[in-house]
Amino acid sequence: MKSVIIGIDLGGTSIKLGLVNISGQIIQSLEWPTPKNKSYHEVIAVFGQMSEQLLRETVYDWGDVFGVGIGIPGFLDFSTCTVFEAVNLGWHQVPLKEELERLWDVPVLLENDANTAALGEMWTGAGKGASHIICLTIGTGIGGGVIINGNIYHGVNGSAGEVGHITVKEHGGRSCNCGKKGCLETEASATSIVLKTLEQVKEASGLLKEEYAKQGNTITAKSIVELAKLGDPTCKTIIAEAGTVLGKALANMCYLLNPELIIIGGGISYAGEILFEPMSEAFRSFALPRLRQNTAIVQAKLGNQAGIVGAASLIHRNIN
Amino acid sequence: MKSVIIGIDLGGTSIKLGLVNISGQIIQSLEWPTPKNKSYHEVIAVFGQMSEQLLRETVYDWGDVFGVGIGIPGFLDFSTCTVFEAVNLGWHQVPLKEELERLWDVPVLLENDANTAALGEMWTGAGKGASHIICLTIGTGIGGGVIINGNIYHGVNGSAGEVGHITVKEHGGRSCNCGKKGCLETEASATSIVLKTLEQVKEASGLLKEEYAKQGNTITAKSIVELAKLGDPTCKTIIAEAGTVLGKALANMCYLLNPELIIIGGGISYAGEILFEPMSEAFRSFALPRLRQNTAIVQAKLGNQAGIVGAASLIHRNIN
Repeated sequence: MKSVIIGIDLGGTSIKLGLVNISGQIIQSLEWPTPKNKSYHEVIAVFGQMSEQLLRETVYDWGDVFGVGIGIPGFLDFSTCTVFEAVNLGWHQVPLKEELERLWDVPVLLENDANTAALGEMWTGAGKGASHIICLTIGTGIGGGVIINGNIYHGVNGSAGEVGHITVKEHGGRSCNCGKKGCLETEASATSIVLKTLEQVKEASGLLKEEYAKQGNTITAKSIVELAKLGDPTCKTIIAEAGTVLGKALANMCYLLNPELIIIGGGISYAGEILFEPMSEAFRSFALPRLRQNTAIVQAKLGNQAGIVGAASLIHRNIN
Repeated sequence: MKSVIIGIDLGGTSIKLGLVNISGQIIQSLEWPTPKNKSYHEVIAVFGQMSEQLLRETVYDWGDVFGVGIGIPGFLDFSTCTVFEAVNLGWHQVPLKEELERLWDVPVLLENDANTAALGEMWTGAGKGASHIICLTIGTGIGGGVIINGNIYHGVNGSAGEVGHITVKEHGGRSCNCGKKGCLETEASATSIVLKTLEQVKEASGLLKEEYAKQGNTITAKSIVELAKLGDPTCKTIIAEAGTVLGKALANMCYLLNPELIIIGGGISYAGEILFEPMSEAFRSFALPRLRQNTAIVQAKLGNQAGIVGAASLIHRNIN
C-alpha cells in the first residue's frame, strides 16, 4: 500500500531528497552535490541513485511511493509542465516531469523552489492552519511565495511572488544583476548584507574585525548573523537596516494582498529579534491599522527542510 | 420569468441604480443624490423608490428580477454580510443585505465599490476574457480591485486591493489623511493633481491661468485633464508625473501578482496618452522583461457605468 512521498529540493549547490510520510514528517533524507556543468540527464541520474539509496536504507520500495514532488530553482511553464529556465543549472525548456514519470512510473509534480518553501511551511511549519500567506526567503537573493485560499498563486506566467526585484529605493541604490538599481534584493538579501559589512569592516571594532581577518579578509552572511547575536554593533545595525527595508516593503505588499500571515525564512531569518523587531516596527508604521490588525509576521520553522516537505506536499495535496 | 438584475452604485454624492440584462447591458438607469447626514434607513428608502420608478418605467416588475447587487464605498464584513464601515456615509456595522432581502424578497449581494468597478470591467469592459487583473480607479482617492482566477480577492479581512496607501516616497511626500506621508494617493490621485496644479498656477501661462480665474481662483481635476489635452504644459507635466509614479507602483505590484491585465479607470484616466505613455514607460523600466511580457496596461471602458454593471455581475455570477 502506498504510504510515502519523495520530496526533492533541487538547488544550484546541492540536491536534498527526502522520504516524507502523509503527515509531512521527513522519515529520512539525503543531501548530495548538484552535478556541475552537466546536462539535465546527469541530474536525473542522481535523482535516481538518491531515491534508490533512500528506499534501500528504509523499509520502502517504489510500490509504496505516491509520487515525487520537486522544487526547482527557476521558472516553470505550467502549461507544458516543463522547466522553462533555471539559470543556475543552465537549463532551458527541460521536460523534467515527462522524463521522470516515464522513468519511475509514479506521478511527478514540479514547482518553483520559493513556492515549495511556502507550501512546506504551510503544511507542517509556521503557516499551519493559515491559507492567505506571503512567504519570503532571505538568502543569497530574496524569493517569495504567495498563497491564496490555500494554494500557490502563479500569476499569468508563473512569476507571481518574485518579490526580490521590487524597487525599494526611490533614487539610486545598489546595482542589481537584474539590470535595475535599488531592488529589495540589493538592499536586504544576505548578499547585500555581506557587501555592506565588507564596506564598513575597516571602521568596525573587535569581533567583526577579528572574524574578518580569520576568514581571510572576507566574511560570510552566516558569521554576520552570529556576530550580531553576540552583540557586534556593526553587524546588528546592518541587519536591522535590512529589517526596516523589508518591513516597509511587506507593508506595501499587504495593501495588495491583505494576508493573514507573513513568514520570513532563509539564512538571515536566524538573526531573530535583531531582524524581526525593526522589520515589525517598519511594518506597523507603513501598514494602516485595518490592514495590519489581522496580519502576523513570523519566523519560518522548517529551516532547510522546508524545500523537501513543500515538494512532497505537491503530491500530498493530490491524494484524497 | 426572471431576466434582469438591479445594480446599485452607492456613492458619497450620488446613488446610481440600473436595470441590467444577463449580457451585462444596462437597459435603463437613474442617478439620484445620496441623502446626507441621515440614517441608513433613508438610503434604503431611496433604493426602494429608485427601483420602483425604474421598474415602472420599463416593462419589468420584481418577479423579473434575479437579485440586487450593490457596490459600497467602504469596508465589508463578508463573514456577517454587513457593511463594517463606510466613512463617507457615516455607516458602521450596517446589516444592509439582511434588511434589503427582507424588504425585496430577492437575493442581495454586497461588494466594495473598487471591486465592483473591477468586476464590471471584467464582465463587459476592458477586462473581458481576462481572469488575472489589477484594476485601479484614479479619482478623489485611488481605489483598487484584485481579480484572481476570475474572482475578486478579498484577503483576510476584505482589505486586499486597497492600494491607495502604498507608500511610494522613500522620504517625505505629501501628508495623507491616513496619517502617513507619500502614499500613492497623495502623489497620483485627482486630489493630488489638483493640489499640485494650484501650487503651480501662479507660474503658469495662458490656458490654465484663464480657467483658474474663471472658476473663481480654483480648478477642478476634470478641467486639468481637459487643459492637458488642449496642450497646457503645466497640466500635461503634472499628469505625466502622476503617470510615472503609477507606472513604478504598478511594476512593484506585478512582482507580487504577475497579472495579465492592468485596467486604469477613474476621472484622470480620461487624460489618455498624457497619462498612459509615461505610466507605461515607468512600468517598462521597473518591471523585468519576464514579468511585463504578458501584462497589458489598458484604459477602463465602462466609465461611470462600471459600478452598476459590476454590482449586477455579483448576482449574474450566481445564476447558472
